[in-house]
Amino acid sequence: MPERDLIRAFQGIVGARGGRLLRGSGDDAAVTRAEGVVVTSIDSVVDGVHFERSTHSPGDIGHKALARGLSDLAAMGAEPGEAYAALAAPADLGESDALEMVRAMEELAVATGTAIAGGDVTAGPVLSIAVSVNGWAGSEHELAYRDGARPGDLLGVTGELGGAAAGLLLLRGLETALAAAERDALILRHLRPEPRLAAGRALALAGASAMIDLSDGLAADAQHIAEASGVAVEVRLEALPVAAGVEAVAEAAGRDPFELAAAGGDDYELLLTVAPERREAIEAAARSAGAWVRWLGRVGPGAGVVLVGPGGAPVALAGFEHL
Amino acid sequence: MPERDLIRAFQGIVGARGGRLLRGSGDDAAVTRAEGVVVTSIDSVVDGVHFERSTHSPGDIGHKALARGLSDLAAMGAEPGEAYAALAAPADLGESDALEMVRAMEELAVATGTAIAGGDVTAGPVLSIAVSVNGWAGSEHELAYRDGARPGDLLGVTGELGGAAAGLLLLRGLETALAAAERDALILRHLRPEPRLAAGRALALAGASAMIDLSDGLAADAQHIAEASGVAVEVRLEALPVAAGVEAVAEAAGRDPFELAAAGGDDYELLLTVAPERREAIEAAARSAGAWVRWLGRVGPGAGVVLVGPGGAPVALAGFEHL
Repeated sequence: MPERDLIRAFQGIVGARGGRLLRGSGDDAAVTRAEGVVVTSIDSVVDGVHFERSTHSPGDIGHKALARGLSDLAAMGAEPGEAYAALAAPADLGESDALEMVRAMEELAVATGTAIAGGDVTAGPVLSIAVSVNGWAGSEHELAYRDGARPGDLLGVTGELGGAAAGLLLLRGLETALAAAERDALILRHLRPEPRLAAGRALALAGASAMIDLSDGLAADAQHIAEASGVAVEVRLEALPVAAGVEAVAEAAGRDPFELAAAGGDDYELLLTVAPERREAIEAAARSAGAWVRWLGRVGPGAGVVLVGPGGAPVALAGFEHL
Repeated sequence: MPERDLIRAFQGIVGARGGRLLRGSGDDAAVTRAEGVVVTSIDSVVDGVHFERSTHSPGDIGHKALARGLSDLAAMGAEPGEAYAALAAPADLGESDALEMVRAMEELAVATGTAIAGGDVTAGPVLSIAVSVNGWAGSEHELAYRDGARPGDLLGVTGELGGAAAGLLLLRGLETALAAAERDALILRHLRPEPRLAAGRALALAGASAMIDLSDGLAADAQHIAEASGVAVEVRLEALPVAAGVEAVAEAAGRDPFELAAAGGDDYELLLTVAPERREAIEAAARSAGAWVRWLGRVGPGAGVVLVGPGGAPVALAGFEHL
């Protein structure tokens, strides 16, 4: 299918929404009504690096490409706005696969109130999708950056951890005695990450002092907050909300479950810091967004991340390969 | 060089400018003060499709990646704002090449008043760069779309045509008797296209009824205006401002010079339509931006593009392969 026809087919799938978009796909650029601040991120997924066509369906790939960008908006506390996708399609990507990919992006766009407002299709030797997103907030004060953590702050995380890393091991053929439903849930956790947009917005407005999404893994992402804020971050491994089934997967793989939860990536939960007096406001904000926060540790003076084991002593975790 | 270090090196190259950027690279997303309308486009360049590493230096590649996006803003009449680049770098892309690429992007950003405000670096099997740009205008009324051409409008184009296509033939080894300076100028036209931002803004404000940038070639891009506006567009080939040296290159290649000028792509000039009573305002606007407009033909009722040959009869041109 020629690129131009593919673009037309894509235009037939995506819908305008959100009320800001004045002109979508089909001109040299899209036009959006602007006010307050615009929050922008670009990210790409590449075959063999962020997904594998042998284990990821076209829909999984499209979903993940958009989810990563939206997760960045969640980590800022921005409202999702518009997304723009640049697709490089190899010759062996069939038309139906390309359409399935865009349909999955549109499903996630509908679910999150995002408008896919433009894009670009080109030939390429391997499948890759770059997605840029524009999110919105009334002012910078409504957002949470990485550099606002202060000694004395609490460290918290939304949701459950380790599920995506466990799902990846299962996708790659690890045998376990897990029930099918639990197994499927872990795999879905890897294939269809859900950006925590409502939680991110609520937590930023409730006064999170720093926030980041967990794409590289909790230990690495805590390190980003520690560096940007010039503080030390202490994480009690025992407090990690390890997702159901992760322990069984870790055992079957001969790994430590904390490795999957703290060093595995792609959970796309939110890691945040907050002044202790705002703890209850943060918990209430999370609940209002249908989420919850678990408290993992504290921010202190110094630098770096210290992982504290069940016995109270610092531990080192092996790195964890992730897509 | 690990991706994280490469990103840091890039952050050391790019500078903030324009006064809108509140938070640039280094957080989950960039934050920009927003008002009026934001004009957004995404585009990518892929090795072997839009450039070849054998003929394009890393600087050429970086320049082109950003120039394409900025040219979309020019075609809308938007002021350039912020750019975001997602780089997929193969293992054989050296650190110095990567830095040269980003330095060239930054040079173009400086020249156009654009801030490179964020990006993403990942591994990939071949070099590709996706760039999204946010441009700005006070309101939608300051912009020019593709769908505003009306029967009776004049068709005009900025600058000179065919230079990029001729430059590509030269890059690929075509022998000619051209003087070195003329040869180099044509090659540069291909390697370092200059987005017509000042002209685009001036022409849109002066009342261009439709505008598009010439990336696919004049005939194809005129067709985009014809389709979007529901009109027919007539182009007198004799009126085309063919760049110096293009005729000699066409002769050496056994091609028609009009083929290079009307079917060759990548000139990144602006094609526009305007109501006849605004002709002088448009000419003055172009001059004020250091550019000029040549009048090529007329818009009429109907559909499609008619190329009129020197004898006054419609002609068909062969397609022209372009990067």
